[in-house]
Amino acid sequence: MRVAVLGAGPSGLAALRAFESARRTGVKELPEVVCFEKQSDLGGMWNYTWRTGLDEYGEPVHASMYRYLWSNGPKECLEFADYSFDEHFGKAIPSYPPRAVLRDYIMGRVEASDARRQIRFNTAVKQVEYSEVTGRFTVTVKNLVEDRLETEEFDRVISATGHFSTPSSPEIEGVEGFQGRVLHAHEFREAREFTGRTVLLVGSSYSAEDIGSQCYKYGAARVLLSYRSRPTGYDWPEGFDEVPLLIRLEGDTAYFADGSSAEVDAVILCTGYLHHFDYLPDDLRLQTHNRLYPDGLWKGVMWQNNPGFFYLGMQDQYFTFNMFDAQAWFVRDVILGAVAVPDFEDRALDVKDWLAREEALVSADEEIDFQAAYIRDLMQHTDYPEFAVEQQGELFKQWKRDKKRDIMGYRNFGYTSTVTGTVAPPLHADWLDVLDDSLEHFLSSNGVEV
Amino acid sequence: MRVAVLGAGPSGLAALRAFESARRTGVKELPEVVCFEKQSDLGGMWNYTWRTGLDEYGEPVHASMYRYLWSNGPKECLEFADYSFDEHFGKAIPSYPPRAVLRDYIMGRVEASDARRQIRFNTAVKQVEYSEVTGRFTVTVKNLVEDRLETEEFDRVISATGHFSTPSSPEIEGVEGFQGRVLHAHEFREAREFTGRTVLLVGSSYSAEDIGSQCYKYGAARVLLSYRSRPTGYDWPEGFDEVPLLIRLEGDTAYFADGSSAEVDAVILCTGYLHHFDYLPDDLRLQTHNRLYPDGLWKGVMWQNNPGFFYLGMQDQYFTFNMFDAQAWFVRDVILGAVAVPDFEDRALDVKDWLAREEALVSADEEIDFQAAYIRDLMQHTDYPEFAVEQQGELFKQWKRDKKRDIMGYRNFGYTSTVTGTVAPPLHADWLDVLDDSLEHFLSSNGVEV
Repeated sequence: MRVAVLGAGPSGLAALRAFESARRTGVKELPEVVCFEKQSDLGGMWNYTWRTGLDEYGEPVHASMYRYLWSNGPKECLEFADYSFDEHFGKAIPSYPPRAVLRDYIMGRVEASDARRQIRFNTAVKQVEYSEVTGRFTVTVKNLVEDRLETEEFDRVISATGHFSTPSSPEIEGVEGFQGRVLHAHEFREAREFTGRTVLLVGSSYSAEDIGSQCYKYGAARVLLSYRSRPTGYDWPEGFDEVPLLIRLEGDTAYFADGSSAEVDAVILCTGYLHHFDYLPDDLRLQTHNRLYPDGLWKGVMWQNNPGFFYLGMQDQYFTFNMFDAQAWFVRDVILGAVAVPDFEDRALDVKDWLAREEALVSADEEIDFQAAYIRDLMQHTDYPEFAVEQQGELFKQWKRDKKRDIMGYRNFGYTSTVTGTVAPPLHADWLDVLDDSLEHFLSSNGVEV
Repeated sequence: MRVAVLGAGPSGLAALRAFESARRTGVKELPEVVCFEKQSDLGGMWNYTWRTGLDEYGEPVHASMYRYLWSNGPKECLEFADYSFDEHFGKAIPSYPPRAVLRDYIMGRVEASDARRQIRFNTAVKQVEYSEVTGRFTVTVKNLVEDRLETEEFDRVISATGHFSTPSSPEIEGVEGFQGRVLHAHEFREAREFTGRTVLLVGSSYSAEDIGSQCYKYGAARVLLSYRSRPTGYDWPEGFDEVPLLIRLEGDTAYFADGSSAEVDAVILCTGYLHHFDYLPDDLRLQTHNRLYPDGLWKGVMWQNNPGFFYLGMQDQYFTFNMFDAQAWFVRDVILGAVAVPDFEDRALDVKDWLAREEALVSADEEIDFQAAYIRDLMQHTDYPEFAVEQQGELFKQWKRDKKRDIMGYRNFGYTSTVTGTVAPPLHADWLDVLDDSLEHFLSSNGVEV
């Protein structure tokens, strides 16, 4: 049996790690696993590139990552159950590490395994087709370095290509004539570009609050957050303002729903992403908005209309790395036949039940509990190590309260690991003052030998 | 017989117009022609969009067009032989119109024909496959509005999707850490973004000189052009400097091959484009750098390995719209059986002969003559109207001299049409002072009723 894993970001790597884990526990009959990765290294979204739009091969740039990005959630909420932060760094580190440190952690687990040799880098997936006759999938990929297409057959396919790469950008009246830069968060790279300028962020979710904070941190003259429904309500510092929905641009002026206006130098659309799978035929393709339980996926992972096709990480996310793990371990056990798969009707009923639960949610706390319950449901079927997911849910709730308390300072706080019990030290200096986000600076400032 | 035309820019529209012209002259047995266009309107590269990277459907943005772009060559060198500027505007207009005016002209010819109803807009070509068994092509397209794939069969396919859409961007030492914006010319939109800033253009060809000129015109503090082999040598104004090859970026500083350096706010890569056809299998895919005579194309249009597959406009270009016309008329007559197609070997000899001639060229003047001779060679086989292509070649040579004479003022000059004999008036004001590039402003300033 051959299994294709599409993408070597956190979700794809979780799949590789899941099969590796089965091998280590003595499972004999394991499939051949091949992972296809467009980028030249593993890490997915956690790889930074200065490129935007199309890459050196003409492929859409995957990363939405920007310089100076720090985790916006506590690392204790995304800790792998089978590979702790303590194990990787040999010492307790603060709860909100910058990008390079988190990437080092993700990659550290993989480098400690045999997974890298299963990955074909610089290889973009172009097409997946299913044959009713053979019951197999034909996967066509492009070898980007050699500039040619290659085709192989697989028995199972796991799509792990993410859903924060293809921007969703609304049309705004007058945008064609706006006399400044207009970009989507996907294309944001360097906050210093906006030093001394007025930046308007359209949106009020994570991208807007974090990119706005970055711009403030690196010297923007003024930051405006334009909300559709309601302001974030955070206690923003001087120079930060929340404004109603952007209605129209004209010249260098932005007009808002309450009739107010402001001169702005740049507009950054923090308006979300599309689930986009250019390599899939319609009958395998997930079509959904960003939600906690996308329809059509049994247990959030198995494609209802083709039980040989799986998705990882397609949910809206509080939980991330360890949720991908729980999904990957579950998918692995389905593929190995260790999890009993109900028939179509029973699977549909299960999905329907979860969708009803999701639709009844009314608060962020309930959403967190819902996602924890989903992960718990997956975990009970596999041998993924216990990591007190409900307790992590409580950490998420604390995190939300801490942000409310101090939106510019919450990254200074430390939390307790549910995996090791380690209490994270506070950040070595006030986050607003730490302009160097390199791995070397962060680790050495926190007493870790580099 | 069914013919697919891929793309409704100047080349694709030329193909539609060629078949339409045959119909008007009484040809009875005409194929059904279907044109697929990703954008929501015709015009190809001449449509401006504020979007960069990926569009609202997640498709790569086609346009490399920026605001305030004016033709950088005389309109007399791209005049359609069968639809003059005089016919369209009813009055002589200056030789270098802004984008919207040129687009209006291109579209005017099409709107005067029946071509629009043959175009399926918002439809991106995803795959073309050839069957040896049926001798037909299967074309798979994505209906972007309805978000689903559709498949149809065709006897002939004409690829007209352009080759100035997929950026070619080199890696530069230190670029990951540069503290400003880095973009490719493909993503450049609005010169006013760089008002008061220092802009470094990497490259010394058309993109660099024109984007540099734009930035100067709209108030950049300083413009640097970094050349690889030799400076452009133009008589640039104060505030413009030519510097050697960019070697390295560090912080906000650029270091050049001669050891000099400069603080810069933005780096714009004017480093060219890739011939990129993501929808084609390897055996139909043109792989070439940008040159006057790409290998593998008989008469520059027929794919050597599959005579049912054609390309339009894949050459490096002095001539544009009317060269695409000459190609389209020729392809039409090949498809209609009105042009005798030699066997593979003889076609190969013909290609080899042209390649040898191209490789022997040593000056721009020779290149212009070469491309004129190529167009003449096509024209002698079809009924495309005479337009004195050699004489247009002489206009191109004059244009090069005029640029040399006055790089910031050459757009003020007027030339004589080889189609109508009309002498273009000089621009209504100094190009550097005309900040409004709208169609309305240009036409009314030049006495055309809008």
